[in-house]
Amino acid sequence: MLAAQLTDSLAERLQAVASRLRALEDREQIREVIARYGPMADAGDAAGVAGLWIENGTYSVGGVAEARGRAAIAQLIDGEMHQTLLEKGCAHLLGPVAIELDGDSAIARGHSIVFCRDEQGYAVWRVSANRWEMIRTPDGWRASKRFNAPLDGGDAARALLGFPDKA
Amino acid sequence: MLAAQLTDSLAERLQAVASRLRALEDREQIREVIARYGPMADAGDAAGVAGLWIENGTYSVGGVAEARGRAAIAQLIDGEMHQTLLEKGCAHLLGPVAIELDGDSAIARGHSIVFCRDEQGYAVWRVSANRWEMIRTPDGWRASKRFNAPLDGGDAARALLGFPDKA
Amino acid sequence: MLAAQLTDSLAERLQAVASRLRALEDREQIREVIARYGPMADAGDAAGVAGLWIENGTYSVGGVAEARGRAAIAQLIDGEMHQTLLEKGCAHLLGPVAIELDGDSAIARGHSIVFCRDEQGYAVWRVSANRWEMIRTPDGWRASKRFNAPLDGGDAARALLGFPDKA
Repeated sequence: MLAAQLTDSLAERLQAVASRLRALEDREQIREVIARYGPMADAGDAAGVAGLWIENGTYSVGGVAEARGRAAIAQLIDGEMHQTLLEKGCAHLLGPVAIELDGDSAIARGHSIVFCRDEQGYAVWRVSANRWEMIRTPDGWRASKRFNAPLDGGDAARALLGFPDKA
Repeated sequence: MLAAQLTDSLAERLQAVASRLRALEDREQIREVIARYGPMADAGDAAGVAGLWIENGTYSVGGVAEARGRAAIAQLIDGEMHQTLLEKGCAHLLGPVAIELDGDSAIARGHSIVFCRDEQGYAVWRVSANRWEMIRTPDGWRASKRFNAPLDGGDAARALLGFPDKA
Repeated sequence: MLAAQLTDSLAERLQAVASRLRALEDREQIREVIARYGPMADAGDAAGVAGLWIENGTYSVGGVAEARGRAAIAQLIDGEMHQTLLEKGCAHLLGPVAIELDGDSAIARGHSIVFCRDEQGYAVWRVSANRWEMIRTPDGWRASKRFNAPLDGGDAARALLGFPDKA
């Protein structure tokens, strides 16, 4: 083979490697965005939490609130319910997420458990299903929508955790 | 150096990068398979759960059941105990896993916590150790065996979480 | 373009890909070190746990202990408090971590929940914030410092979970 052909072949292989790498980077960034939610929420960092979403992102907290836009999401953290939890002592533990990556968007599914301190110690305050819709932006991956529903035996939470394409 | 030598050297370096990338992809896919268990189990997706294993995979649930093969694993989800949990409201939270990758097989270790809803709110229903034996298949990584044992002070759970090669 | 120029260009692109890959490997190794803590702690593997830190690493367990060096960290596992938990049955569940990678060092933040078995079943024994300072060593990534504080409404835990640079 001529040198030019060899470099062409190498360039193609390098391109394929770079594409695979990018998919891993995408998944890592999506995981990181979601991993920041709990620590930021429990640190009371309303701006940090809101910045995990795009400007007009939404967060539907089943049975609790429907926040549209970063200001409304920040208000969930600054609001009375969350501040009361922070004062008592709480943890917003988000479990590992299953991620379906599809180009510039992705869906991530996982549990969130809120522990809250009371007189006896710590109680399990809320157990929920979460479905995150994530999109690639010039500033990295962000949530466009997060849906949360309590795992109370109803259909809402089960629908969030299901993988329709695989069923 | 001649051009042909340069491309040879580049090809070798590219091969090394591709190998490292593949190891990361393997770990990511293993993590993803395990991350799907909880959401699929709580969505009641028996076929989805079973598909995380190879066809003749096994799931040993300490003190509860011993399922051999996908049909038996699906039956754990469709069976009375799991369906009762789903109706009450439950979460199968699987924590992050430590992964030992060894070519076409891997071992992953981690906790699983089952939360269940009752009259008072949510209770911690089961706290277990898990050891997953994973293998590479033409369709991607799958579980060949999962061992689960309750963390009740006994040796079974501790054995699942130990790293014999490191001890 | 001449063949030599083509290979130069390819070499540069390969170098860029290798750098991105290394950052992902770093994050994966940091995640793995932290993912091993819980399984090793619950297996009672004191040497394994201590080996997650550098030789003179520290582990500050808010309100409980201040361990300096691997021998002291191992003693936390071999000590009476932890051994009592192991006999009762316990799980040290560490949630996913948010990772800030900065060259040869990194900060990881996340929750840890300790579940403990009692007469009624399992109780939530401790809910904490964690900040890990990680460094690259010739043997891979290790913890240099881990700070842990109970999420009890006080400032200590909130400070560990905050992202000062983002605030």
